[in-house]
Amino acid sequence: MSSVIKVDIPEKSYEISVAPGSLDQLGEQMASLKLGKKVLLVSNPMIFKHYGERAIASLQNAGFEVVSYNLPPGERYKTLNSIQKIYDIALENRLERSSTMVALGGGVVGDMTGFAAATWLRGINVVQIPTSLLAMVDSAIGGKTGVNHPHGKNLIGAFHQPSLVLIDPEVLKTLPAREFRAGMAEVIKYGVIWDAELFTQLEASKHLDQLRYLKSDLINYILTHSCQGKAEVVSKDEKESGLRAILNYGHTIGHAVESLTNYRLLKHGEAVGIGMVAAGEIAVKLGLWQKADAERQNALIKKSGLPTQLPADLDIETIIDALQLDKKVKSGKVRFVLPTQIGEVKVTDEVPTDTIRQVLQEMAS
Amino acid sequence: MSSVIKVDIPEKSYEISVAPGSLDQLGEQMASLKLGKKVLLVSNPMIFKHYGERAIASLQNAGFEVVSYNLPPGERYKTLNSIQKIYDIALENRLERSSTMVALGGGVVGDMTGFAAATWLRGINVVQIPTSLLAMVDSAIGGKTGVNHPHGKNLIGAFHQPSLVLIDPEVLKTLPAREFRAGMAEVIKYGVIWDAELFTQLEASKHLDQLRYLKSDLINYILTHSCQGKAEVVSKDEKESGLRAILNYGHTIGHAVESLTNYRLLKHGEAVGIGMVAAGEIAVKLGLWQKADAERQNALIKKSGLPTQLPADLDIETIIDALQLDKKVKSGKVRFVLPTQIGEVKVTDEVPTDTIRQVLQEMAS
Repeated sequence: MSSVIKVDIPEKSYEISVAPGSLDQLGEQMASLKLGKKVLLVSNPMIFKHYGERAIASLQNAGFEVVSYNLPPGERYKTLNSIQKIYDIALENRLERSSTMVALGGGVVGDMTGFAAATWLRGINVVQIPTSLLAMVDSAIGGKTGVNHPHGKNLIGAFHQPSLVLIDPEVLKTLPAREFRAGMAEVIKYGVIWDAELFTQLEASKHLDQLRYLKSDLINYILTHSCQGKAEVVSKDEKESGLRAILNYGHTIGHAVESLTNYRLLKHGEAVGIGMVAAGEIAVKLGLWQKADAERQNALIKKSGLPTQLPADLDIETIIDALQLDKKVKSGKVRFVLPTQIGEVKVTDEVPTDTIRQVLQEMAS
Repeated sequence: MSSVIKVDIPEKSYEISVAPGSLDQLGEQMASLKLGKKVLLVSNPMIFKHYGERAIASLQNAGFEVVSYNLPPGERYKTLNSIQKIYDIALENRLERSSTMVALGGGVVGDMTGFAAATWLRGINVVQIPTSLLAMVDSAIGGKTGVNHPHGKNLIGAFHQPSLVLIDPEVLKTLPAREFRAGMAEVIKYGVIWDAELFTQLEASKHLDQLRYLKSDLINYILTHSCQGKAEVVSKDEKESGLRAILNYGHTIGHAVESLTNYRLLKHGEAVGIGMVAAGEIAVKLGLWQKADAERQNALIKKSGLPTQLPADLDIETIIDALQLDKKVKSGKVRFVLPTQIGEVKVTDEVPTDTIRQVLQEMAS
């Protein structure tokens, strides 16, 4: 099974291809887009060890000149300093406006390569080859790129649409189990905010916590539906002025918790899972969502092996204060995405601080 | 005399206002655009001393909350490090997506503030108040933003359209004479590439080298026509895929000369003047342009007090090699903008290196 999802944006349309084994078609697919000859492949040492040579061979067979660079792994190197290194290599190899940076890796590699491509020569092509579940269903799609500021995640960035997103589900085989589970949080998110059918499919699967327990048909279904969901939302609202905000479901409290634990204790998806539990409970308390549906959501999160309680020793008032720092704050008001039924959410900045506090207290471990 | 020029771009339309004394209407004009309350005014110490208080007073009277920051002056601080400082202040003051950075200054302040605004929270509003002639007629319009890489000018950047460009010709009174002359190079450029009537008006003026010798009507005419020229070109081609390339007239060799003298010996406009002389001579040698027209162009450049010869001790082969590093290089071929008549140019990458060499030899001082 393979599928192609079209992302339609006024500025630039592109395709997301989901197909097992497609890593070996990278060069061919890029050649059909008429991109310039020079390619800078950006990865990290671990991913490169597994897939670098195959990607390069495919590119070279299609006539591209390839140089590669491995970023040091991990969120703590997601800084402007690391971007400087990419610039240096782009300069050394005389990348031109028609050249392409190819991001082969998870969310960190994708965000950073995307930002470097967005800002080198005021924007060159970027192709995303996400290798983590999280990157496949979320960060590689939609054109958000960026790095962290010492005091906040993704505060520095740009919108820069890729020329192609190539998803090869087979590369998930080398993804650590914890990373797989973290990615599942975003999959569940699409079920809650957009795609009730995806939600039901997830409920029907006995396991969600390890790739090897999932049928390959289900994996392809999950990838295709998640990408489709994100593509539809992004196509309707590229720059996050309206609809796109729903993708931040679980991210308001998720980001705060992630940031307050210095991005070390929790994976992003784990924090989002906690944030979805919190947002769901807030919605129930405000009378927007049925308690039974919140429980169905929380059951999926648990089935994926994800935490549903706040990390120990995290002060609740500190979390509430941190919410103010979020990019999504508007005129000082914290914005929440809250479910109204499975497959549907609304955006509101009218959540009383007391309700947030109460829910967080109930979630303390 | 005051005029409003509309820049129409699919993504975002905005106005360029040219009106003496309009600095005091900044707050009012921004309020009419429904921008968020928070403003970060970025300037440099010298400009801020002259105009900072007036700008801030106007903003505060219109209800904005203003913080200000002065960049260290000069092209050598046009680096990612300086941008980091702007980010820090944006974070400290909790700028939001609806907030605005206001650039009060010349090209360096405008480019850097624009880039910081383009990349903070993936893009917030920017208002440009250019205070140099060069910035008024060129860099403040069209959305190009950026900083320098240690090995090349403006290699790092983004396209980010302003919400408003406010041009108050009265602020030119405090512009150093050499800066004024450098700006005149870009004015002459519009005459050559786009606006034969502007060219004729420049010929009709006895002086072009000092503001005080120019009638204020002529200044307003020059500003309006130059902005109009740039706005028309940019509206037709926002991201420099085609037509916009003509704005690089004089910049191919100009950039190389500027870079090889480490951005210290020559002002950008002076380098562009030299580049226009060179491009004109190349066009004549290739039979594209009449020698008489090239001489008319060179006469305007001289009347503006601008150099028309290469700086001493600059090796010609080094210049030719440096052309390869230009952002405008495509598939290894150097792209030139060459005049065909006053008010019209063509873009070509078919200039024999020998012709370039010959022209540069004739221009050696």
